[in-house]
Amino acid sequence: MSRKLRMGMIGGGRGAFIGGVHRFAAGIDGQIELVCGALHVDPEIAVLSGQDLHLNPERIYKTYHEMFEKESKLPSDQRMDFVSIVTPNHVHFEPAKLALENGFHVVCEKPLSFSLHEAQQLQKLVEKTGLTFALTHTYTGYPMVKQAREMCQSGAFGKIRKVVVEYPQGWLSTPVEQTGNQQASWRTDPKRSGKAGSVGDIGTHAENLAETITGLKITELSADVTTFVENRLLDDDANVLLRFNNGAKGVLHCSQISAGEENALNIRIYGEKGGLQWHQHDPNTMFVKWLDKPMEVYRTGQGYMGKAAAAHTRTPAGHPEGYLEAFANIYQNFTKVVQARLEGTSADPVYQDFPTVEEGVRGMQFIDAVIASGQNNAAWTKI
Amino acid sequence: MSRKLRMGMIGGGRGAFIGGVHRFAAGIDGQIELVCGALHVDPEIAVLSGQDLHLNPERIYKTYHEMFEKESKLPSDQRMDFVSIVTPNHVHFEPAKLALENGFHVVCEKPLSFSLHEAQQLQKLVEKTGLTFALTHTYTGYPMVKQAREMCQSGAFGKIRKVVVEYPQGWLSTPVEQTGNQQASWRTDPKRSGKAGSVGDIGTHAENLAETITGLKITELSADVTTFVENRLLDDDANVLLRFNNGAKGVLHCSQISAGEENALNIRIYGEKGGLQWHQHDPNTMFVKWLDKPMEVYRTGQGYMGKAAAAHTRTPAGHPEGYLEAFANIYQNFTKVVQARLEGTSADPVYQDFPTVEEGVRGMQFIDAVIASGQNNAAWTKI
Amino acid sequence: MSRKLRMGMIGGGRGAFIGGVHRFAAGIDGQIELVCGALHVDPEIAVLSGQDLHLNPERIYKTYHEMFEKESKLPSDQRMDFVSIVTPNHVHFEPAKLALENGFHVVCEKPLSFSLHEAQQLQKLVEKTGLTFALTHTYTGYPMVKQAREMCQSGAFGKIRKVVVEYPQGWLSTPVEQTGNQQASWRTDPKRSGKAGSVGDIGTHAENLAETITGLKITELSADVTTFVENRLLDDDANVLLRFNNGAKGVLHCSQISAGEENALNIRIYGEKGGLQWHQHDPNTMFVKWLDKPMEVYRTGQGYMGKAAAAHTRTPAGHPEGYLEAFANIYQNFTKVVQARLEGTSADPVYQDFPTVEEGVRGMQFIDAVIASGQNNAAWTKI
Amino acid sequence: MSRKLRMGMIGGGRGAFIGGVHRFAAGIDGQIELVCGALHVDPEIAVLSGQDLHLNPERIYKTYHEMFEKESKLPSDQRMDFVSIVTPNHVHFEPAKLALENGFHVVCEKPLSFSLHEAQQLQKLVEKTGLTFALTHTYTGYPMVKQAREMCQSGAFGKIRKVVVEYPQGWLSTPVEQTGNQQASWRTDPKRSGKAGSVGDIGTHAENLAETITGLKITELSADVTTFVENRLLDDDANVLLRFNNGAKGVLHCSQISAGEENALNIRIYGEKGGLQWHQHDPNTMFVKWLDKPMEVYRTGQGYMGKAAAAHTRTPAGHPEGYLEAFANIYQNFTKVVQARLEGTSADPVYQDFPTVEEGVRGMQFIDAVIASGQNNAAWTKI
Repeated sequence: MSRKLRMGMIGGGRGAFIGGVHRFAAGIDGQIELVCGALHVDPEIAVLSGQDLHLNPERIYKTYHEMFEKESKLPSDQRMDFVSIVTPNHVHFEPAKLALENGFHVVCEKPLSFSLHEAQQLQKLVEKTGLTFALTHTYTGYPMVKQAREMCQSGAFGKIRKVVVEYPQGWLSTPVEQTGNQQASWRTDPKRSGKAGSVGDIGTHAENLAETITGLKITELSADVTTFVENRLLDDDANVLLRFNNGAKGVLHCSQISAGEENALNIRIYGEKGGLQWHQHDPNTMFVKWLDKPMEVYRTGQGYMGKAAAAHTRTPAGHPEGYLEAFANIYQNFTKVVQARLEGTSADPVYQDFPTVEEGVRGMQFIDAVIASGQNNAAWTKI
Repeated sequence: MSRKLRMGMIGGGRGAFIGGVHRFAAGIDGQIELVCGALHVDPEIAVLSGQDLHLNPERIYKTYHEMFEKESKLPSDQRMDFVSIVTPNHVHFEPAKLALENGFHVVCEKPLSFSLHEAQQLQKLVEKTGLTFALTHTYTGYPMVKQAREMCQSGAFGKIRKVVVEYPQGWLSTPVEQTGNQQASWRTDPKRSGKAGSVGDIGTHAENLAETITGLKITELSADVTTFVENRLLDDDANVLLRFNNGAKGVLHCSQISAGEENALNIRIYGEKGGLQWHQHDPNTMFVKWLDKPMEVYRTGQGYMGKAAAAHTRTPAGHPEGYLEAFANIYQNFTKVVQARLEGTSADPVYQDFPTVEEGVRGMQFIDAVIASGQNNAAWTKI
Repeated sequence: MSRKLRMGMIGGGRGAFIGGVHRFAAGIDGQIELVCGALHVDPEIAVLSGQDLHLNPERIYKTYHEMFEKESKLPSDQRMDFVSIVTPNHVHFEPAKLALENGFHVVCEKPLSFSLHEAQQLQKLVEKTGLTFALTHTYTGYPMVKQAREMCQSGAFGKIRKVVVEYPQGWLSTPVEQTGNQQASWRTDPKRSGKAGSVGDIGTHAENLAETITGLKITELSADVTTFVENRLLDDDANVLLRFNNGAKGVLHCSQISAGEENALNIRIYGEKGGLQWHQHDPNTMFVKWLDKPMEVYRTGQGYMGKAAAAHTRTPAGHPEGYLEAFANIYQNFTKVVQARLEGTSADPVYQDFPTVEEGVRGMQFIDAVIASGQNNAAWTKI
Repeated sequence: MSRKLRMGMIGGGRGAFIGGVHRFAAGIDGQIELVCGALHVDPEIAVLSGQDLHLNPERIYKTYHEMFEKESKLPSDQRMDFVSIVTPNHVHFEPAKLALENGFHVVCEKPLSFSLHEAQQLQKLVEKTGLTFALTHTYTGYPMVKQAREMCQSGAFGKIRKVVVEYPQGWLSTPVEQTGNQQASWRTDPKRSGKAGSVGDIGTHAENLAETITGLKITELSADVTTFVENRLLDDDANVLLRFNNGAKGVLHCSQISAGEENALNIRIYGEKGGLQWHQHDPNTMFVKWLDKPMEVYRTGQGYMGKAAAAHTRTPAGHPEGYLEAFANIYQNFTKVVQARLEGTSADPVYQDFPTVEEGVRGMQFIDAVIASGQNNAAWTKI
């Protein structure tokens, strides 16, 4: 019998967004217990945030350094098993490094780090320690994305020729970072976000989705990167031509100034015999297109769905599953893999399926390539 | 500071569907801990099911009678606070009655009971004990349904004239109850389900949705009730004309033989000045229609959404929230109300919003009226 | 070689709507020439209207009596071949009767006549004269409706069990007939429209669509018929339960007070093995549903479409064809049948496909039954 | 009183597609009469094709040279008024030139010519002769496109920042040009089509749509142009980055190997305050997006539509108008302008609205720039 895992959280206190999402996601399946946290950079808010979450006062830490130090000393049947890092980008590397060095498994927000160099260091550390590391590229947690991946990579559509992936948002159409919006503030700040704005925040999701589903690699790209809002310090729009390692061509565009758009992540893939379309706003539906037959509408939870999708669906068809369930699928799989380790076994391969430090390094390479191309008038840049 | 609530569960063990949904829903917000259960009518499966869920072995009960007896004797800081009843319809009444008599709050699956008589008894018992009782008419937990209710009842559309509500499913198009399908088996069995099949299982959702959103009451109805699948003992389809207490007219149809449909619950409401449409498969979207202006597309999480919707939304716009989150909204509100009671205060009115025994009685009246009308060649029948 | 047909028109002058539609439809295929008309009940407007249309002044008639008289005397190579009757309902019978008696083929607007009695007289006259008579139940002219008919009647879905057909409009939500709106004025006037308002104007389209596609007959119905707008003399809403001759059940609702709706004619048909959905606003698309397979999206113009649909499609897939093309399909087929007669041959059976006086009588029976049921508190009424 | 115009047609005989479309479009409004034609390059087929269309045998010409010669000699009340050129690209220039030189107005298929040089010559000739010249860039004939143009150019959305326009098709996913498909054959033949395949055939539509709606000009572009199907001689896919003269950025992609797509021309435009989306498959609908308000769904025929859209709509809302009606709008406006000339007046400005030789030259410049960029590894190329 497996036991529940004990989670510690870094970041995610009052005023945060994504920390709450991690907790929802970790809570759904009842296999994870939040036992401690260093929830805010401000120690006072950290404490209040821990109280909000009913944490044991002794395990509400004021810094993550304190957390690693004290948790490490707890008996193994109390000590946290893993840490979730839900801070802005510039505070991913150090806590992740410390976690790994102290023997804790890690769930980390994306992008993996502030710079590619940091990402590569983490990759080495994961290899060295052998610990389990999950990167929350949420969108690939959707059952339908797993179905898309299975169909593409099984050759159902023949050789892939074209990929169109896009992630338009509109919430940064105006300079909201100047109005006290905390989410906007760090995302547009090069000191906290890194060299990229929209490209890092959402462009990487598009890149990750395209490569995950197709199994192909982008080899070079040409990016027209723009900052539309005056005085903004990072990009808020990018249009990118893609070339893939099998000869396929593609378009990727991401934007935070596409007024009226929410999280309109959408992918279309075309092969020799057919293709597919999936949109994040309607995640339980996928359009499957064929040369000579009517388009088919795949739906999550149906009996014709493949094994991977089925293993990541909680309810029968007709019960919309959303973003939190996709997120929970990453936690589910991370949990199953760690639980199996604890029992000295190995998880069913269908669950050994979550983004990890590899995807994180890949994302940082993508950011570097797009920004470099953008600074060079969209010159073709290898990735 | 409020504390987490302690939940006991009746039903929901191995092979069940809705029990898992209750646990997902109760888990999302981290305010509820499952502490005990009588999870299956077969004691052995009950025990295995409790182990699956990491329950303390001493609190894995073989019957709900045992559970009520033993939990009642636990100290108040350990004893469960409430019970979730997730059994088939014929096993709602007795455990609910026992819970109330033993001082436990209740979350109960719908329909409330096997018969209207039972429902009315429960209603009296709730009134008498003053305990908190939530009925999981999930669909009204969606933020967009709360928005629809707010717009309708604020008079935005003028006097309501017409309601078209429907719930087509296709999963009982063939006699799957004869193939060992446990979900189909009890739902088509009059001994476990009551006098109604599709009408009780999903027709009540349509009725509840229509009355909840409009604030109107169905006064009489004319129902053509059919069993299409041979040898099935309960209805699998009903077409119903509705008349409302303000003079509005309506159509309600529900079906489990609408081949190819999932949970296609859909409602359209028309008033003098405009109206709305909401479909359960795309729950974060609502179409708002006007006489002379373009149709508007409302989306969950947007700033223009009203207070009730906002209070029941966990993420910003563009993060699809689904069925489990709607379900979780019932648990969230039930929890806030009970937590406030425990602290001697009262929950914010925006959270005092979940279906209760009243809606349960109403549902049983609806079932009685539809079945009576159906047996009388669709004669108009008061409700 | 066939020759162009010569058309005369009754009604359709200045201020009219449907007359223009008939002319667009007749013009598309270049096989019909408008040669004469009695275009308005007011002789002066009749003349001006004829000039608008570049008619030969000698063949602009002031009354249809004059038209029949004078056209009959023209040499056969000049005389009109057929007449299109596009007047309000109360002026269908007499000109149709005169046309038939004078040997002219007829295209007539629906509903066929003012009363069932008139309809039956016309039916006899068509039988007696053997002339070609087309009734412009436009919606069955859509290629996708023909595809639906082919699939249903070929048994693709097994025995049909349920039909849900609806036609909501919103344009009569307010008393626009009191504001000088000519279209509203005659449609709400029992002296010009007959005993039914919405039921005659659009309910008959729903009835015709359901019977045409399924090949079934409605045997009895129960109708709740309402007039919502004060001082209106005819119904503006009806909700109807249907029973079909094969045991299928159904719902039909039509409305002119469904605020915000256009011509939202929609049909869903469910059989034992699958079903379909078609919506008039997106006429080139049909959703085909199956028990165990993904829903398919059929599209006009694709190679997998059947023979009937293909014969009524003018462009390849991806070129939206609309209402006027559906209308033109009735004219196309009527023309091919009449041209074949003129040449002493017979049209390809695929083109012998348009609504005729039979459907007209059926529509009048439907109106009679709905109105009778409505006046009798929705009692079941045979049709 | 205006009179009907007399049309001659070049191309469009048996086996053709677009010629039929021109005739449908010209026929709808009853203001144009086809009086003569040189319908096929093969004289025998030309004659048979003329007979199919009931042309006067004397005016069925074997070549367009013959047509211009003989028609020029006819009395002015019989002579054709204008010529429609519906041949493959390499046979646009000469007949257009001859038409203009002989005093005939011209309707010409797009792209305007085989080469930019030819296009520029035609432009000069149109200027010199002052004759009326319409280029059938159909898609801008849709009423909703006119609405989009009006809203964009009125500043409703603020300064335009981003344009995403795409035209995916799938019909050339396999080498159908080797199977006798006449449409595929000339479009993939550089001798008949020019230097571009998909870029000329459909990319120009995307470019024309974007510039027409926004009123902006593309100043430079970077194009990745690909031929995916083996042995094909022209491009079948292109991904293009765009820069506009106001600083806006854009993406244009067109494809004929996007398996499963029809004519999925789609445009999204984003300004500072809002934006719009329009898709050719659902041409009567436009999504209008705002920063802080619900998305609005505009529909053709509604009272809130602007003057330009209203003047190009034939039926009230709810009657789908399609491709042929959009096409007919070009003919309608061309006709009104020529009729006004004949009467010595000038058409209402709302009708002086159709693509002309300017758009034709622009399209050829676009083709040149895209192909040049494509040959230069997507280097930025001025247009």
